[in-house]
Amino acid sequence: MSIQRITVIGTGLIGASVGLALREAGFTGEIAGWDRSPAELETAVHMGAVSRAAVNHQNALELCTGSNVIVLAVPVLAILDWMEQLAPRLHSDQLVTDVGSTKAEITHAAQHLFNKEKTASFLPGHPMAGKESGGASLAEAALFKNAVWLFTPGNKIASSLEAEWRTYVAKFGSRILDLDAARHDELCAWVSHLPQMLSTAFSALLLDTFADAPDLRAIGGRALRETTRLGSSPYSMWRDVAQTNTAPIAATLLALELRLAHLRENLKSPALREEFEKANRFRSTRADAESNKPA
Amino acid sequence: MSIQRITVIGTGLIGASVGLALREAGFTGEIAGWDRSPAELETAVHMGAVSRAAVNHQNALELCTGSNVIVLAVPVLAILDWMEQLAPRLHSDQLVTDVGSTKAEITHAAQHLFNKEKTASFLPGHPMAGKESGGASLAEAALFKNAVWLFTPGNKIASSLEAEWRTYVAKFGSRILDLDAARHDELCAWVSHLPQMLSTAFSALLLDTFADAPDLRAIGGRALRETTRLGSSPYSMWRDVAQTNTAPIAATLLALELRLAHLRENLKSPALREEFEKANRFRSTRADAESNKPA
Repeated sequence: MSIQRITVIGTGLIGASVGLALREAGFTGEIAGWDRSPAELETAVHMGAVSRAAVNHQNALELCTGSNVIVLAVPVLAILDWMEQLAPRLHSDQLVTDVGSTKAEITHAAQHLFNKEKTASFLPGHPMAGKESGGASLAEAALFKNAVWLFTPGNKIASSLEAEWRTYVAKFGSRILDLDAARHDELCAWVSHLPQMLSTAFSALLLDTFADAPDLRAIGGRALRETTRLGSSPYSMWRDVAQTNTAPIAATLLALELRLAHLRENLKSPALREEFEKANRFRSTRADAESNKPA
Repeated sequence: MSIQRITVIGTGLIGASVGLALREAGFTGEIAGWDRSPAELETAVHMGAVSRAAVNHQNALELCTGSNVIVLAVPVLAILDWMEQLAPRLHSDQLVTDVGSTKAEITHAAQHLFNKEKTASFLPGHPMAGKESGGASLAEAALFKNAVWLFTPGNKIASSLEAEWRTYVAKFGSRILDLDAARHDELCAWVSHLPQMLSTAFSALLLDTFADAPDLRAIGGRALRETTRLGSSPYSMWRDVAQTNTAPIAATLLALELRLAHLRENLKSPALREEFEKANRFRSTRADAESNKPA
């Protein structure tokens, strides 16, 4: 195996979990790590996700220069920034990959900055895994088990390093799926970004409407809990998603607004039955799909 | 104890669970049952939720006439219909209660038809428990454990039968909360009916947009699953909720539509941060409230 040294940039929930999953998968080489937050980096070292901590940003760049694989596990805009910084420093037998939530801008930058004869290779990736709260302390090797790990390689030619990295991802327990970057961003707008925005908007609306009314709290059950769960998600991560996938997210929001208005105008009409029947149909095909999943 | 005979009208998920919970709570008297669906009634008898099955609608009315307590566990419009049929047949030492999801119309009807000197007593109730699918086969004695059981008694004077019924509900493991009927319907619109309509609208929209696209199915994770879970709910039950709580549901839908539009127009502006911060605040007070719950 040619991967001996890996550097993880950003040792929060995902980055630290990658480190732990690599160890679980049998990787015995060096895992260097860097995080802007000294606390996050220290936690990652303490839990064994990282075996060598960069002492500062400059040192992190140097560790990347000496690594076979660099994993960018920071928010999307920071990934784009690291790509700019790393491209001129790396050479053709190195692989950079990322775990960013949106892929069109990153894949576009990868074609410009990497994947040429004399540059390093870049494999845009996105594990569909996470928790509503972040941070290294919640990291676990099993985070990617039974999750889908998406790649949007575009038309680049796969390097042997890339094949090796994909083997590790499969060992993490993830199911790998290659997608076109634009299709990725459209699908993720529907299945991830829209549910997030919905939960944020609903939670904020409830705060404005009820503050901390005790009867609302007493009555709220599973439906309220599930519909507001993602309201805990941090702005710091979602700002970048909103910035780099604006048009698809806006399109899904608008479509949902119109659909809610349609339902509102038909609360007492037969069209309500049609909406419920369509929803039942969507769920019954989903249930089939879900029962086929190992989780 | 004066409750010896109970009749449950509607032996689906909730009605059959009431029967099972009564047995678990030590009730040894007769539990008569009736359901329009012979299969549901048979299942309820088979699992021990009902000890005597009415043979037809007329027989069900007769069994009610001979019961101390009648529990109406059918959809809201059917509850209103049973109230009309039962009121002239019952007398002052009987109690009727219900488990309907909306309370304004039922409480209003109760003031007209019951709760007078020579009529039976009516206690409007609503256990905040259920599953996304209905049916007696899913019934369980523990369904109401740690759930909130709401009552909207209005200004009626509590009978001793009512006190005894409340004792059973407490034995089911429910936390009892008395509320004004209009407040009940407003709060339930927010915490239950709006999440339902949202999940229905989103699921129906996904069906129209993607049919059964395999990549959508492969990518969808917990966020999609939770946001569409209630899409499985049956129209038959929600039609009555929409019919009897139309204005509050429409108001919550409109408020959410406007909030989503606000968020959509601010995907790249600092207002997005404010929405996330408000949502975080709502969730952090919720988390406090939830950690105080026994479940």
